[in-house]
Amino acid sequence: MSLVTDLRRLIGDRGVLDAAALSERQAGVWRSDALEAAALARPTCTGEVSRIMEYCHQQGISVVPQGGRTGLVHGADASPEQVILSLERMNQIESIDSRQRVAVAQAGVPLETLHTALEPHALHFPLDLGARGSATLGGNAATNAGGNRVIRYGMMRESVLGLEVVLADGTVVNALNSLIKNNAGYDIKQWFIGSEGTLGIITRLSLRLREAPLTRDMALVAIPDFDAVIRLLKHMDSQLGGSLSAFEAMWPSFYRLITTPPALGRPPIGQDFPFYVLLESQGANPDSDRERLQQALESALEAGLVVDAAMSQSEQDCAGFWALRDDVEQVFVKGDALLFDIALPIGEMDRYTTELEVALANALPEADLFVFGHLGDGNLHLAIRVPAGNADSLRPQIEGLVYDPLHAFKGSVSAEHGIGIEKKNYLSISRSREEIDLMRGLKLALDPTGILNPGKIF
Amino acid sequence: MSLVTDLRRLIGDRGVLDAAALSERQAGVWRSDALEAAALARPTCTGEVSRIMEYCHQQGISVVPQGGRTGLVHGADASPEQVILSLERMNQIESIDSRQRVAVAQAGVPLETLHTALEPHALHFPLDLGARGSATLGGNAATNAGGNRVIRYGMMRESVLGLEVVLADGTVVNALNSLIKNNAGYDIKQWFIGSEGTLGIITRLSLRLREAPLTRDMALVAIPDFDAVIRLLKHMDSQLGGSLSAFEAMWPSFYRLITTPPALGRPPIGQDFPFYVLLESQGANPDSDRERLQQALESALEAGLVVDAAMSQSEQDCAGFWALRDDVEQVFVKGDALLFDIALPIGEMDRYTTELEVALANALPEADLFVFGHLGDGNLHLAIRVPAGNADSLRPQIEGLVYDPLHAFKGSVSAEHGIGIEKKNYLSISRSREEIDLMRGLKLALDPTGILNPGKIF
Repeated sequence: MSLVTDLRRLIGDRGVLDAAALSERQAGVWRSDALEAAALARPTCTGEVSRIMEYCHQQGISVVPQGGRTGLVHGADASPEQVILSLERMNQIESIDSRQRVAVAQAGVPLETLHTALEPHALHFPLDLGARGSATLGGNAATNAGGNRVIRYGMMRESVLGLEVVLADGTVVNALNSLIKNNAGYDIKQWFIGSEGTLGIITRLSLRLREAPLTRDMALVAIPDFDAVIRLLKHMDSQLGGSLSAFEAMWPSFYRLITTPPALGRPPIGQDFPFYVLLESQGANPDSDRERLQQALESALEAGLVVDAAMSQSEQDCAGFWALRDDVEQVFVKGDALLFDIALPIGEMDRYTTELEVALANALPEADLFVFGHLGDGNLHLAIRVPAGNADSLRPQIEGLVYDPLHAFKGSVSAEHGIGIEKKNYLSISRSREEIDLMRGLKLALDPTGILNPGKIF
Repeated sequence: MSLVTDLRRLIGDRGVLDAAALSERQAGVWRSDALEAAALARPTCTGEVSRIMEYCHQQGISVVPQGGRTGLVHGADASPEQVILSLERMNQIESIDSRQRVAVAQAGVPLETLHTALEPHALHFPLDLGARGSATLGGNAATNAGGNRVIRYGMMRESVLGLEVVLADGTVVNALNSLIKNNAGYDIKQWFIGSEGTLGIITRLSLRLREAPLTRDMALVAIPDFDAVIRLLKHMDSQLGGSLSAFEAMWPSFYRLITTPPALGRPPIGQDFPFYVLLESQGANPDSDRERLQQALESALEAGLVVDAAMSQSEQDCAGFWALRDDVEQVFVKGDALLFDIALPIGEMDRYTTELEVALANALPEADLFVFGHLGDGNLHLAIRVPAGNADSLRPQIEGLVYDPLHAFKGSVSAEHGIGIEKKNYLSISRSREEIDLMRGLKLALDPTGILNPGKIF
């Protein structure tokens, strides 16, 4: 018990849970297994994080940082001899500057808490994803989160202005830059964004805020073939200019699934079209924004890019469209499902998904493929449903079918979920040996004894 | 002469200039002094770059990479014992994919060459800056260039999807990712962007292209006080949403300078207002885009944020507005001038410039201060005019007046120009010791013998 005792001496009794207490916590928001670790430390400030890291560095104890435990690639899994460092008590928004449009927050603040806090300022933080209620800003940065509005605002990386990071040996690096442009030497925050807790503990962030959009208009459209999907993206990007805020694609099997009972959603347009896209535009002019989307849709209809469309008439309609798209749970209703997050060049998507469907039908005729995702960003999500109880045994085979072809297509085994443990065997599909050597080089330079989230990524 | 002979053996006679031939080349596009170096190597492909680096690494010879030689901080200066590696013969655009909206180009392609090549595809590469005709894509990435449209599209970093880089020892790293989202491990291209040639030689780039805007509307507006400038930025950002493409500020002394003979420009609105802003919006709807800008201006007038305005009626007017803003040369007409590129929080700009004006008046009554810049990005340019012949002798004193206060204001000594040699003594004003230690750590990991652009940044 000396580890727990030592940690309690460093950050107080309430700050440390022992292995027994931990077993009452879930390993993840969507998981039923319990957390396992030698201890869980819950520091309340950067100084405490630094003391924990200094101690663990001296003792050679591995540390696994945890945010909201909403990750999907086992990037925050711990083992019985490791210390979990949870940022849950570092949950303060320290400042919101509505003139400079910068917020400074501790890493444990849930994304949605920031969203809510910004409302009275008529500002918004554009990152948005399904796990917003649990996922933390620190975890968003550590995984370079993506989500629904990347097409307009970029990933988390584009919204982080500065970070405070505690290194493996406890050194505190204050890089809380608040400037949009700062070319004074290397931009070190970039190293930590997306590093999945393997290079340092993100303790505070300064974040770029945007003026809150005042209008939202959406349309669900049916598209005759995949070439038209590509051309529609170009058309909408051009016609809506900077206001296009989502371009979400759904393949017909997914669309049917989420608009047919037992799903609660009903189909706003027919279920037999070759492709569906959910479009969203955000602006500031209640009259003209709607008209602009309507005009862009009409010209798309005339050009044959769209064959049917339903447009939102109200905020309620918009919420309904998103509820359809987000009802991914339907894939779990009639069996088990494996979810994948991949990226590939838009010109290859049709061929990739068609070939995958054929390969699946040959290898596993009982499996069903559902495709959807952030198409405007080159990001697809795949759900592969298999008979209940078979997910674990079929996983290696299915992973091979999904990931192996991506190398030839110049795709990525991870668009936005990261690598964690789940995808580390497939990293070399998307990265060259030289790239991975460079990654290892930075890891060695920053964490020479390898105590930070070991075994993740590579 | 064995160095020149050796290099010629590696990449051919035409590929290498000796010291004598070099003396006929200018050190920079805007400089009158000649290049100095032991040799200049002009490889035509990545393999040749690799051979040069491998050789220089073995021999312990320092290498200075050069792009278009338009840098403003002596980041590509060489000394007589060093080898200059110029990317000038690696000037091919290898591919333009108008569906995926990605271009792959060699590093020596001038920015404007890419702009021109994209016109037939109705695509554009949004980075734009005054040196577009000479500055190269490789240099743009190595310095993380900014320019006129950062407010809408971000800096060069946001437009680079992938890089091919040759490391100090000649290792070729192919990281030519073409995906918008790729969270497969660390995003190593970020390390090289903005590293000013100190970590590797950028040889090829894959770049994110955008649909070309179809309309452009501009306005030059007069503003009653600096608080209204801040509020106008928020107002325009909100009202124009994603289409606001420039928000350039001019302090009255600069505005008078560029609209008074001997300058060719004439004032579109009066010369006695407290502040001026040049606004640009880019969209796709000829009728409604113009109306939208007009409406946003009218509501700004009603709210007292704007007191006078001139709106463009034609493309020619737009070009004329930009010509005014870009006529920075006027500061050199009646004396010498020192140009500075800084960033600071928008809420501090008024106090900073006012205090700088007072400090200058006290210390150097003969100096004149002109302020302008990319205000929407927090980036100001300062021109300080001194009597002809005095620039060099006064430089240290003026640099102190400009840079020293930035630490307290949480500003940066470099918004977009980089550090090079010129600003390296001031790096610690904008970066903490821990940040600089991390930078040195990466430098040591990637270039342990320190042959890549030594003496730059730190």
